[in-house]
Amino acid sequence: MIETSDENTRLTPVTVLGLGPMGRALASAFLEARHPVTVWNRTPGRAGDLLDRGAATAGSVQDAVAAGQVIIACLIDYDAVRATLEPAQARWGNRCLVNLTSGEPAQARQMSRWASSRGIDYLDGAILTPTPAMGTPSAAVLFSGGRDAYEAVRETMAAMGGTAVHLGDDPGQASAYEVALLDIFATSVNGVAHAFALASAEGIEPERFAAFATGIGGLLPEVIKRFAQQIQSGRYPGDRSTIASAASGITHIINTASGHGIDVGMLSAARGVIDRAVAEGYGPEGLARLTTVLHTAGRP
Amino acid sequence: MIETSDENTRLTPVTVLGLGPMGRALASAFLEARHPVTVWNRTPGRAGDLLDRGAATAGSVQDAVAAGQVIIACLIDYDAVRATLEPAQARWGNRCLVNLTSGEPAQARQMSRWASSRGIDYLDGAILTPTPAMGTPSAAVLFSGGRDAYEAVRETMAAMGGTAVHLGDDPGQASAYEVALLDIFATSVNGVAHAFALASAEGIEPERFAAFATGIGGLLPEVIKRFAQQIQSGRYPGDRSTIASAASGITHIINTASGHGIDVGMLSAARGVIDRAVAEGYGPEGLARLTTVLHTAGRP
Ligand SMILES: NC(=O)c1ccc[n+]([C@@H]2O[C@H](COP(=O)([O-])OP(=O)(O)OC[C@H]3O[C@@H](n4cnc5c(N)ncnc54)[C@H](OP(=O)(O)O)[C@@H]3O)[C@@H](O)[C@H]2O)c1
Ligand SMILES: NC(=O)c1ccc[n+]([C@@H]2O[C@H](COP(=O)([O-])OP(=O)(O)OC[C@H]3O[C@@H](n4cnc5c(N)ncnc54)[C@H](OP(=O)(O)O)[C@@H]3O)[C@@H](O)[C@H]2O)c1
Repeated sequence: MIETSDENTRLTPVTVLGLGPMGRALASAFLEARHPVTVWNRTPGRAGDLLDRGAATAGSVQDAVAAGQVIIACLIDYDAVRATLEPAQARWGNRCLVNLTSGEPAQARQMSRWASSRGIDYLDGAILTPTPAMGTPSAAVLFSGGRDAYEAVRETMAAMGGTAVHLGDDPGQASAYEVALLDIFATSVNGVAHAFALASAEGIEPERFAAFATGIGGLLPEVIKRFAQQIQSGRYPGDRSTIASAASGITHIINTASGHGIDVGMLSAARGVIDRAVAEGYGPEGLARLTTVLHTAGRP
Repeated sequence: MIETSDENTRLTPVTVLGLGPMGRALASAFLEARHPVTVWNRTPGRAGDLLDRGAATAGSVQDAVAAGQVIIACLIDYDAVRATLEPAQARWGNRCLVNLTSGEPAQARQMSRWASSRGIDYLDGAILTPTPAMGTPSAAVLFSGGRDAYEAVRETMAAMGGTAVHLGDDPGQASAYEVALLDIFATSVNGVAHAFALASAEGIEPERFAAFATGIGGLLPEVIKRFAQQIQSGRYPGDRSTIASAASGITHIINTASGHGIDVGMLSAARGVIDRAVAEGYGPEGLARLTTVLHTAGRP
């Protein structure tokens, strides 16, 4: 006869520090997966319906750490994580700190050293998906840091759903991927905002513009794949479209936007890079060639 | 007995002025659809395999215009179109000039007036898809200008495949959509180039980076749809992610890129817009709110 006790079915208790949009989505995913969840946020009263759904709130960081076995930090930046944990004097024992806060590779390495100097098991992580994807098959999370720490939390982290990848020992690797991926997201989302402003100045309704714009936006994954191949091979053929043609195209956008009194800072900066590529003789090549003219070091 | 003569089955003769990547793709699509095709390019010798496939080359613009019924211009910009057609003294008769060259709305309107003053039927157009899509179901082309001109070429234009939309009488409308759509494309492709440079500086291989980056790039259509809804409603909830969080994220990218000696012009400009939004009190709102702070007119 197989006996299942409460002990056997009880999942790892998880603490979530930070209840911004992503902290709330994380807490929700762990609740959904039936983990005991404790939440803490600097500003009280942000737990919303998480309490009704079974989460506990901790009155202090110390209590929050004590309540969990895996302690997830999801705050605005690494300084906020330090400001939260530094004064707390929590007893960590064999608990693991999983820091899913966005930051720079150097900050992640520094945080890892900080944890290590206090005997805290540390894993760094980067969430690659928006909040509605958390806990679903489309979620994607990268981890970096000691393999032992990763193996210790791996099963618990499965509650986030989707894909989890451990990138290796260097705690800075998850942030390295994250900043480069965020680069694509931040730039293109700012471009989307700009395009809606321009469309509206031209009398085009947002919904009507979106009907065409989603098609343009949907081209990006193909562009990314082609760039990777060309960069890997070191050859940038201009057989589909050229940097010279892009120089002309971006000028049309700048002129039209300027004519409407719309900021052209990003576009002018992009044209600066394109102009440099043309000046270096790359006008007839494809746009992936731009990757090689972005290093400013040693340039006039 | 039904008699089919050559006369009945002969499709409209098409002339393509310009044999850059897109001009070649257009000529190829019309050949594929069995139209008689004549090509002309400023620099001779660019027709490649189009000649083997049945295209004729014209030795002069005058001859090129004479050979076609629908005359398509696909050159680098409107100045090139003017420089090509102005001195040619071609006899247009009831031929239609379809200008698929990219440009600004004001240029399209001016070109339409230029054509009209010479008694040339004129239609402006904008191609929204990359060259490999030309002639396939995924092609998308916008037209603007007189409905009569559109109806006259509509059947011929079907050879481009996919979706054709006539936006109305104002010849500038196709260009208006095009510049705003190109805004998304140009900005995000420059962002992709930057991200590959950053990833490479962090020791991440292009193909490995692309495996994650395609996922991020694939988020754009959803972002565009949400932006449209929020702009239409005038409400920009920060429930998924906020401008304040984006300010922090973009700073990580800038710091990391700067540390590697990589140009941060576009990112700094984007942060300038984000900072302005925060200064105006929009930190807790969603990123679609950025569309409202891009007008520089009347700002300090
Ligand atoms: N939202 C997304 O789609 C998404 C996607 C991927 C990654 N991320 C990353 O996830 C992290 C959290 O993002 P988020 O969207 O949930 O919200 P966020 O706006 O980035 O951060 C808000 C959280 O940070 C806390 N905080 C700010 N300054 C603090 C300080 N000095 N001390 C302690 N706590 C402080 C806030 O507490 P108060 O309530 O007290 O202000 C709140 O809990 C960020 O690093 C973000 O880049 C988010
Ligand atoms: N390629 C794409 O994916 C794509 C997509 C959408 C729209 N478009 C638009 O389609 C148009 C053509 O693009 P493309 O990619 O084929 O090539 P492009 O590089 O934009 O233009 C090259 C063509 O312009 C001609 N040209 C340049 N200056 C000229 C001048 N002063 N007089 C006469 N001809 C001149 C070139 O002739 P030479 O060979 O003599 O230099 C060549 O035929 C552009 O407006 C572009 O924005 C392209």
